[in-house]
Amino acid sequence: MNFLEKRIVEDGQVLSSSVLKVDSFLNHQVDPELMEKIGKEMAVRFQGTGITKIVTIESSGIAPAVFTGLSLGVPVIFARKQKSVTLQDGLFSAEVYSFTKQQTNTICLSAQFLTSGDRVLIIDDFLAYGEAALGLCEMVQQVGAVIAGIGIVIEKSFQPGRQKLEKKGYRVESIARIQEMKEGSLTFLTNIKEETFHE
Amino acid sequence: MNFLEKRIVEDGQVLSSSVLKVDSFLNHQVDPELMEKIGKEMAVRFQGTGITKIVTIESSGIAPAVFTGLSLGVPVIFARKQKSVTLQDGLFSAEVYSFTKQQTNTICLSAQFLTSGDRVLIIDDFLAYGEAALGLCEMVQQVGAVIAGIGIVIEKSFQPGRQKLEKKGYRVESIARIQEMKEGSLTFLTNIKEETFHE
Repeated sequence: MNFLEKRIVEDGQVLSSSVLKVDSFLNHQVDPELMEKIGKEMAVRFQGTGITKIVTIESSGIAPAVFTGLSLGVPVIFARKQKSVTLQDGLFSAEVYSFTKQQTNTICLSAQFLTSGDRVLIIDDFLAYGEAALGLCEMVQQVGAVIAGIGIVIEKSFQPGRQKLEKKGYRVESIARIQEMKEGSLTFLTNIKEETFHE
Repeated sequence: MNFLEKRIVEDGQVLSSSVLKVDSFLNHQVDPELMEKIGKEMAVRFQGTGITKIVTIESSGIAPAVFTGLSLGVPVIFARKQKSVTLQDGLFSAEVYSFTKQQTNTICLSAQFLTSGDRVLIIDDFLAYGEAALGLCEMVQQVGAVIAGIGIVIEKSFQPGRQKLEKKGYRVESIARIQEMKEGSLTFLTNIKEETFHE
């Protein structure tokens, strides 16, 4: 298990076959040292891909994104979740359906911080159905910038998010990939790249 | 001028006598290196005060808070803004009136991450009327924890936030203190402590 998988096993709570609660280190209480490690690991995985900007979404994406930005030496933009569809001038927006909340939200990004010359790394805390990541990609592409990759902290690999993103040609890197969850237990999906984490 | 005051002068936009837009490095696009510097400066200002936890509020408080947490070696909890007053079990809440948006929001914090033995540093991006900081203090005190101090990135010193907080006995440290704003210009309030920033 890598450092994040270990932490999930120690401090996460599997509430059902689809709900993992990681409120103690990622979604409500945040462990800054863990976030720094995540940022360094993201930077290793995407090194040499010419990233110029990171785009994430408030709120839980911000901590992993700013540490990735620090490691890669690039600015971070966090998209805003808006309940209202009233948009200001110069704002890109996308509709994101939340399967958890069963509602559609409009997310937005100011046009002034991205240009067509940017190579963007999308960072988010969870990948499940992929709707938030797709919405972020859509906004980035509205400005003509390139998606260099998508970096996810925790991927629920039994849900279709990765497939949807890969089908669109995006490279997805997730630090922890969960293969299956049952109340009280979970298993990770490991591949050769992730084996490098073993100590 | 210190590093943050310089950045405000270079990249901030004074939109009116009360509105400062710092979307390019703090509120929408975030400069991770600047956030790291802010975290280190907060840690210097509050060193030796026995802080065990940082509490902030989503979303713009998160980046400065996690870097402060990294420098002090303590976890960060970000309070959630809730539109609904329907609260789950084990949640502390406070009402926060926003003068900007002219509406009252309920903010909340899970009871499980704070104990009466904690010494809490409140971190926020802006201090204006002090309502958000007061709401955070109120929740922290509901659990019986001690407020060790309040660390602010940008203080609008011409608004009553600091006075309200100091009147309650809280120590307030702000990295940039704005004395006055006029469309297109601003002046900082400096004191001997802040002079140490001069290079």
